[in-house]
Amino acid sequence: MKERICIIGAGPSGLAQLRAFQSAAAKGADMPEIVCYEKQADWGGLWRYDWRTGVDEHGNPNHASMYRYLWSNGPKEGLEFADYTFDEHFGKPIASYPPRAVLFDYIEGRVKKAGVRDKIRFNTVVRDVRFDNGKFEVTARDCATDKETREIFDNVIVATGHFSMPNVPHYPGFESFRGRILHAHDFRDAREFTGKDILILGTSYSAEDIGSQCWKYGCKSVTVAHRTAPMGFKWPDNWQEVPALVKVEGRTAYFKDGTSKEVDAIILCTGYKHHFNFLPDDLRLSTANRLAATDLYKGVVWVNNPALFYLGMQDQWFTFNMFDAQAWWVRDAILGRIELPEAKTMEADWKKRQADEDALADDYACIAYQGAYTQELIGETDYPSFDVEAANKAFYQWKKHKKEGIMTFRDHGYVSPMTGAMAPPHHTPWVKALDDSLEDYLQTEPAKTGQKIAG
Amino acid sequence: MKERICIIGAGPSGLAQLRAFQSAAAKGADMPEIVCYEKQADWGGLWRYDWRTGVDEHGNPNHASMYRYLWSNGPKEGLEFADYTFDEHFGKPIASYPPRAVLFDYIEGRVKKAGVRDKIRFNTVVRDVRFDNGKFEVTARDCATDKETREIFDNVIVATGHFSMPNVPHYPGFESFRGRILHAHDFRDAREFTGKDILILGTSYSAEDIGSQCWKYGCKSVTVAHRTAPMGFKWPDNWQEVPALVKVEGRTAYFKDGTSKEVDAIILCTGYKHHFNFLPDDLRLSTANRLAATDLYKGVVWVNNPALFYLGMQDQWFTFNMFDAQAWWVRDAILGRIELPEAKTMEADWKKRQADEDALADDYACIAYQGAYTQELIGETDYPSFDVEAANKAFYQWKKHKKEGIMTFRDHGYVSPMTGAMAPPHHTPWVKALDDSLEDYLQTEPAKTGQKIAG
Ligand SMILES: Cc1cc2nc3c(=O)[nH]c(=O)nc-3n(C[C@H](O)[C@H](O)[C@H](O)COP(=O)(O)OP(=O)(O)OC[C@H]3O[C@@H](n4cnc5c(N)ncnc54)[C@H](O)[C@@H]3O)c2cc1C
Ligand SMILES: Cc1cc2nc3c(=O)[nH]c(=O)nc-3n(C[C@H](O)[C@H](O)[C@H](O)COP(=O)(O)OP(=O)(O)OC[C@H]3O[C@@H](n4cnc5c(N)ncnc54)[C@H](O)[C@@H]3O)c2cc1C
Ligand SMILES: NC(=O)c1ccc[n+]([C@@H]2O[C@H](COP(=O)([O-])OP(=O)(O)OC[C@H]3O[C@@H](n4cnc5c(N)ncnc54)[C@H](OP(=O)(O)O)[C@@H]3O)[C@@H](O)[C@H]2O)c1
Ligand SMILES: NC(=O)c1ccc[n+]([C@@H]2O[C@H](COP(=O)([O-])OP(=O)(O)OC[C@H]3O[C@@H](n4cnc5c(N)ncnc54)[C@H](OP(=O)(O)O)[C@@H]3O)[C@@H](O)[C@H]2O)c1
Repeated sequence: MKERICIIGAGPSGLAQLRAFQSAAAKGADMPEIVCYEKQADWGGLWRYDWRTGVDEHGNPNHASMYRYLWSNGPKEGLEFADYTFDEHFGKPIASYPPRAVLFDYIEGRVKKAGVRDKIRFNTVVRDVRFDNGKFEVTARDCATDKETREIFDNVIVATGHFSMPNVPHYPGFESFRGRILHAHDFRDAREFTGKDILILGTSYSAEDIGSQCWKYGCKSVTVAHRTAPMGFKWPDNWQEVPALVKVEGRTAYFKDGTSKEVDAIILCTGYKHHFNFLPDDLRLSTANRLAATDLYKGVVWVNNPALFYLGMQDQWFTFNMFDAQAWWVRDAILGRIELPEAKTMEADWKKRQADEDALADDYACIAYQGAYTQELIGETDYPSFDVEAANKAFYQWKKHKKEGIMTFRDHGYVSPMTGAMAPPHHTPWVKALDDSLEDYLQTEPAKTGQKIAG
Repeated sequence: MKERICIIGAGPSGLAQLRAFQSAAAKGADMPEIVCYEKQADWGGLWRYDWRTGVDEHGNPNHASMYRYLWSNGPKEGLEFADYTFDEHFGKPIASYPPRAVLFDYIEGRVKKAGVRDKIRFNTVVRDVRFDNGKFEVTARDCATDKETREIFDNVIVATGHFSMPNVPHYPGFESFRGRILHAHDFRDAREFTGKDILILGTSYSAEDIGSQCWKYGCKSVTVAHRTAPMGFKWPDNWQEVPALVKVEGRTAYFKDGTSKEVDAIILCTGYKHHFNFLPDDLRLSTANRLAATDLYKGVVWVNNPALFYLGMQDQWFTFNMFDAQAWWVRDAILGRIELPEAKTMEADWKKRQADEDALADDYACIAYQGAYTQELIGETDYPSFDVEAANKAFYQWKKHKKEGIMTFRDHGYVSPMTGAMAPPHHTPWVKALDDSLEDYLQTEPAKTGQKIAG
């Protein structure tokens, strides 16, 4: 019988896995049978926008964490696919910080070309996986037909992402706050906060970006409270950074330095949790959000049961092309082209990686570290090799540009590690670009007839 | 070996089941071993307030649907426990429409007295149930310790409620609405809508009550769109009922009659779904929200596998005392005091009940029907019999009082079916009672020192 492979999730990671197998098949390899389960109605993972919050239309925790008017927060030159460039997809050069819809289109373009959609069971949530007698038993519910299946697989590849299950801390007074409290995961439209005083907790990407969005779309003020350290960018006048939140009373937030502020809404940009509600203890990854994940050999093989793989579970500077590197590598491990070492060696591998990570001096070193990891995996497969150092460089410059101007960094362009060409500037500065549609982004001049906003 | 019984859920229904077994034990019966799994940190089910929305602190869909300032929407005389009166619990007569915290206290009082808390595993979510070789295998995750257990039981009683998984319809334009869209399930504090124009979809209890709350706490206007028929109460001036919603554009809602309205928020009071994400197809109840549920003999026995029971799955006029009637009956079926008939008879039972329900003329007939059902079950166990007709009567009067004044019906009092005594009036008319705390409710005069609001 053919080997049977289960992929859970059709986001960028799961799609990379489908593309990796398809690429080997196209070169003549004998393919196992592949089933990809995807709980959403479409592919693209987090890049698929959903207006819903809380639970999805089938009663599963809603996967979507992206919001309207979201633009890439890193340069596209850092995430470009080596086997499918931006130039190939769009037929012309585009600027470096595309909005969500543009990146969704790019992700989709490659897998449409590869013709892998028929391997995916949409609207189908995996609700249990068990390992017994050397095989995996996967229980999934097709939510469209409301019927369950239970099927047997030789390998399972978990590609369910880890920026979807919100980490929602409690602070004294939250239970009786008179305004709105939401996590970044449930943030959808900055215009809900026009004219409002907002308080943000957290100092990472969601905090800086959601704050910037609300500011751009006319909120009255932004206050960001930090637990550890302020972000320290040059913020607009109606934006302040304050010490940690202590408690709220009525609509007043009190901070560690004794100051306080009346606010209408509190947006918890407090990060996400690795969460696998469909896995039993013996298969369940438990790791912090870091560059070298716990218990994963080469960042992908579950050391406690090497028939199980995880993709994309690291904290991410590199994304799409790192997922590709992982997917090609996992494919080759499954196809027997790469041999897995004994358990002890695999254990030593992730520990060594973590020790190396712990010794990194700063963000620049982290970028180089993850670039080197990506390079390492690529070197062991037939994924098209590319100029990883050029991608690193785009990230270094991005950091510098953010420091220079948090509201202007997206107006810069970078050199593609795939084509070596410099990206053109966008037709409108980001602070003035209220239209985030694909159509507007791809034209060479801004829309003349008022601003359209992509759905 | 002792029989092992699993109860899933420690809301009013699951607690009724624990109390039913404890009551038999107190009278000398030989008890099976009982484990009750409860995913929340405390008991009380929906009556436990939670400020969180979306997912709970453990990443499970949040159970809580109740909101701040929620007062009973029916008279307490309709839901009184026959074995534990309001008078016994509070030591004095109280008014007929208590706020949530008061009813939570009452629910808790009985089970504290019964001493059943040690049977409950809190923070523990059931994630899978399988039936194999005549036994149930229940997989549950203790979210506090993050460890799973898999245990074997002879019977499973599902008491997980069915007003927790929101039914969230899509209307054209929702994906690009510029205000906030939320389901009643995620509604928490009416003060978030002070000064706002709100649109409500739905015409049932959530619609009338959430609209009334927002009105009471100062929203600018309430617009309710109906799919079937308007509610037709005498609404305040800034409250209008309009035909079905057709679409939204920007912040404008368009209705079937061609009219439109600018709104800040859309609150979907569109009901809930029976949802059992931990059950496989062969054990999973699938029913509409009605008085006679599909596939349940006597409203509680799963006809396809009579070792499995469901509590409280009906639409509800009667609540707490009906759950009691069901729990006592299920207990006796498990203890062998009641014999279950053959499958064909059980099948005929629910079909007959549904046919009878379908023939009911109006809401008054529905109330009497559910009263008679409750009476029927009570008659077959040792649950203290009570004057069900008096409870019916409280419901009939309640309906009349609502018709007379939707903002004043809660100022009335009714006769207890347990004690025969008339409830005293509350110290403050409901529209003026902004303080929903237990303390305020129980004092004989309103607070003098400003309004406190219960957390
Ligand atoms: C707000 C936000 C903004 C971001 N912006 C950027 C950016 O600008 N640039 C960038 O490079 N990265 C960004 N990221 C990082 C993002 O993690 C990656 O870009 C990428 O989406 C990760 O891909 P993935 O496939 O690993 O996970 P996901 O994209 O999360 O996809 C996982 C898939 O698994 C499915 N799934 C989950 N559970 C189940 C189940 N039980 N059964 C079946 N299917 C299941 C989900 O529905 C989903 O489709 C952002 C993340 C967030 C949260
Ligand atoms: C907004 C609102 C207001 C209401 N107001 C009234 C009112 O005024 N008067 C009235 O009589 N009724 C009211 N009700 C009706 C309500 O359904 C009942 O009062 C009662 O709470 C039902 O009890 P239950 O135990 O059947 O379900 P619930 O109260 O829903 O309790 C179910 C329990 O099961 C637990 N659970 C669920 N899934 C799992 C799992 N997988 N594992 C472990 N535990 C799980 C939940 O955490 C919860 O504690 C209201 C309902 C709503 C939604
Ligand atoms: N395209 C975009 O524009 C965009 C926008 C948003 C997010 N993203 C992506 O989304 C992913 C997640 O980013 P994220 O910012 O959501 O999460 P994150 O990077 O994990 O950051 C979490 C933040 O929450 C803080 N925090 C955690 N618990 C807290 C508590 N109890 N009280 C106060 N603060 C607390 C942390 O503070 P400490 O430092 O004190 O621990 C940290 O600042 C990233 O990959 C990012 O790139 C992209
Ligand atoms: N204590 C309290 O004050 C209080 C407050 C709120 C709720 N509750 C309780 O909560 C429970 C649930 O009540 P509920 O009102 O949430 O639910 P419900 O009684 O099931 O009512 C659902 C409503 O949604 C409408 N609806 C469904 N789908 C729709 C769609 N696609 N478009 C437009 N309308 C749609 C229905 O309209 P149609 O008639 O057209 O089908 C109906 O009016 C009840 O037990 C109630 O007692 C109590």
